[in-house]
Amino acid sequence: MSSSAVAYARQNQPRYLNELKDFLRIPSISTLSENKGDCRRAAETLVAELTRIGMKNARLLETNSHPLVYAEWLEAPGKPTALCYGHYDVQPVDPIDEWITPPFEPTERDGNLYGRGTCDDKGQVWAQIKALESLFAAYGKLPINVRVILEGDEEVGGEGIADLVASKPPELKSDFALISDTELFAPGLPTLCVGLRGMIYTEIEVRGAKQDLHSGMYGGAAPNPFFALAQMLAKLKDENGHILIPGFYDDIIPPSPEELAAWNSLPFDEEHYRITEVGSRSLVGEAGFSVLERTWARPTLDVHGIPGGFIGAGAKTVIPAKALAKVSMRLVPGMTPAKAFKLYKTFVEKIAPAGVEVEVRLIHSGDPCLVRVDNPYIQAATRALHEVWGKDTVFIRSGGSIPIVGDFDHHLGIPSVMMGFGLPDDNIHAPNEKFHIKNYELGIESVIRFMEEAGK
Amino acid sequence: MSSSAVAYARQNQPRYLNELKDFLRIPSISTLSENKGDCRRAAETLVAELTRIGMKNARLLETNSHPLVYAEWLEAPGKPTALCYGHYDVQPVDPIDEWITPPFEPTERDGNLYGRGTCDDKGQVWAQIKALESLFAAYGKLPINVRVILEGDEEVGGEGIADLVASKPPELKSDFALISDTELFAPGLPTLCVGLRGMIYTEIEVRGAKQDLHSGMYGGAAPNPFFALAQMLAKLKDENGHILIPGFYDDIIPPSPEELAAWNSLPFDEEHYRITEVGSRSLVGEAGFSVLERTWARPTLDVHGIPGGFIGAGAKTVIPAKALAKVSMRLVPGMTPAKAFKLYKTFVEKIAPAGVEVEVRLIHSGDPCLVRVDNPYIQAATRALHEVWGKDTVFIRSGGSIPIVGDFDHHLGIPSVMMGFGLPDDNIHAPNEKFHIKNYELGIESVIRFMEEAGK
Repeated sequence: MSSSAVAYARQNQPRYLNELKDFLRIPSISTLSENKGDCRRAAETLVAELTRIGMKNARLLETNSHPLVYAEWLEAPGKPTALCYGHYDVQPVDPIDEWITPPFEPTERDGNLYGRGTCDDKGQVWAQIKALESLFAAYGKLPINVRVILEGDEEVGGEGIADLVASKPPELKSDFALISDTELFAPGLPTLCVGLRGMIYTEIEVRGAKQDLHSGMYGGAAPNPFFALAQMLAKLKDENGHILIPGFYDDIIPPSPEELAAWNSLPFDEEHYRITEVGSRSLVGEAGFSVLERTWARPTLDVHGIPGGFIGAGAKTVIPAKALAKVSMRLVPGMTPAKAFKLYKTFVEKIAPAGVEVEVRLIHSGDPCLVRVDNPYIQAATRALHEVWGKDTVFIRSGGSIPIVGDFDHHLGIPSVMMGFGLPDDNIHAPNEKFHIKNYELGIESVIRFMEEAGK
Repeated sequence: MSSSAVAYARQNQPRYLNELKDFLRIPSISTLSENKGDCRRAAETLVAELTRIGMKNARLLETNSHPLVYAEWLEAPGKPTALCYGHYDVQPVDPIDEWITPPFEPTERDGNLYGRGTCDDKGQVWAQIKALESLFAAYGKLPINVRVILEGDEEVGGEGIADLVASKPPELKSDFALISDTELFAPGLPTLCVGLRGMIYTEIEVRGAKQDLHSGMYGGAAPNPFFALAQMLAKLKDENGHILIPGFYDDIIPPSPEELAAWNSLPFDEEHYRITEVGSRSLVGEAGFSVLERTWARPTLDVHGIPGGFIGAGAKTVIPAKALAKVSMRLVPGMTPAKAFKLYKTFVEKIAPAGVEVEVRLIHSGDPCLVRVDNPYIQAATRALHEVWGKDTVFIRSGGSIPIVGDFDHHLGIPSVMMGFGLPDDNIHAPNEKFHIKNYELGIESVIRFMEEAGK
């Protein structure tokens, strides 16, 4: 079918791209206190833009952290209601010296737009808004009812929106959620994500001596918290990537044979993935599982940093009084963050070596989730995607965590359509994050057509 | 005997203390490039002061790093020549927020002078200079010939002085060295240090993916350099502190039964040491060796920091592309830095886990050393110390490293008298470094009397 809204979007792509660049210039890094004002500015920008395109009641909802953005348009009686979700906050930019162009000066190169948040997730949020703008411009209305809820704490645990969703407010009453925070499995291949890993993000603090000591004077008698941490971390996972925490794997629900067969038919070349995406000497992980199984359907444990001690150039001969490790685990369907953390904490405390005191803290967590592919909104989405991209949709999972998907399911009782337009090599959370500009454009068209299909 | 120089020193103690404070206010941190000018200022201050008190030819000797300070007074024909050594550079001050008073604003509390460098080593350098000043003031001359050589790179490897000593210049021709950079075994107990551990200070760099990756997307497939480091570090030393590098212990010359017996008679309470000096839940180290043996006569391995990755507050779900560990080992008589580093590097490269590349770098090193207690200068020192402190001298070793002592031995063929006045709880290399003011005063008197005895 021809869509006047799609035609409008195509005519306005240069403007749509420039507006996105303006939005990306706001350094809305949620984890850094010095960017608090920028996060608010990003939220206020969204309220103004949603109002301008025709949404009603656009406003900030305050939280204990960065504000939520809400808007609605509920003038399609008898039609379903979509809850459009995204996040306007972004990851920090370190290591800053590895960026080719500045992270908050969006730059076009080779058909891509480079900058922090281009793909994760400000570019995808803006695509949703531009889809709504196109529909309003073409028809003076939307084909379905739409609520928009955008958060500024996704990269730091999303407590504000989790609390709001758990309170089941009337503003969030909807039939399904539309989430654009995922990726295509491969360039040009329309993709719906139907499974996410959960996570627990933790800190292990190890304290030894009452203060920093000289490693010559005290080496051989004073406990070394960094060495103790190394000993403990090495006991959490074996050489093959198998997590050694007792009971950690007990509740896992493995993927069905059909799902595994579908994954095996996806266009995936492990060596190409190793070279182009990872770039390491070899891949790692549990023996007996494919890369897709290991990253989508198996729990993992990663160390993100070990702050403390002497980190300057040169040499300081110190036995630091304390050390900290930032450790997270990804969880898969069947597992719960509460039980995983309990098993982990108990084990870490048990393996603490002599001489040190250990404290294990949960920083944040999210449930794993699975979406049934036979729901009508997933079906509407596959029709829309087929038309825009000219191909059948593939159903994948993501190794990442979008805790809000589980919250929407548990508290609002609605399924999520995870229709995202990133690419596997978009460098999210890393230097030189990018968004393929064609995917931004087709993303807008996909959301337009999905809403038209959902309104039929 | 009565000493006019000692009397002069006693009369001038208030001035001697105030002058030390002025010297300590110069933040001569050798490892930080931003303090390069301060190091030079400290060196120039020493040249001016040595000239003022009566030393001749005081001047800077340039190196590739911070300048050396040289001065001489050679007008005592037929008398031995002392080479007075110390260092004017200090350790960094982090963690700065644990200092009770600012590190470069020397402050008196409870009979102690607090500040960076008070004990290690600017306070002890200044005590030597004030001893020389007292001798000049009392007699118009010195009882022996004296050369002074002070360095500004002791905390960063001391390459400049090592190169100078290796070239055996006429300026350093002496009969013995006097080094005040060690400590009393216990308050009020005159002490000569006759053994030092050597060291190798290294970095292990581990590289995994070509860039930082999202731990959700890639966890389970991409190598984690921090986890790899933890695995490797944990293999370097067992649960009992025994280093697992093959061959590491092969060449050790253990202390003699007589020396061990003397150590066992020292006033040392392990539980008191644990509580007051270390403050950890328990002590660690190799089974079957006392604390003094473990810190004086056994090699050790410590981790000083693990820079890289995410070290901010909050959470960042990143698999860092690389990680670094700062690792040093203390060496004991019989071992050599070259062989120890070779064994270590070979072993670290061998235990590198799959998926990562490892680079092992030597940052600096120093030889272990032992001094014979029957040499005449050690004997002169014990007579002087007995008079000033009223007690017999104890002979100890130090777990720390003063590489210059080995260099003086090898290249100049002279023994070192390590007569230091710090205390075990002086917090060197740590926040709230201090120097007991009484020890500063008796240190000056001890050096005066030692020179008088050496000139007899």
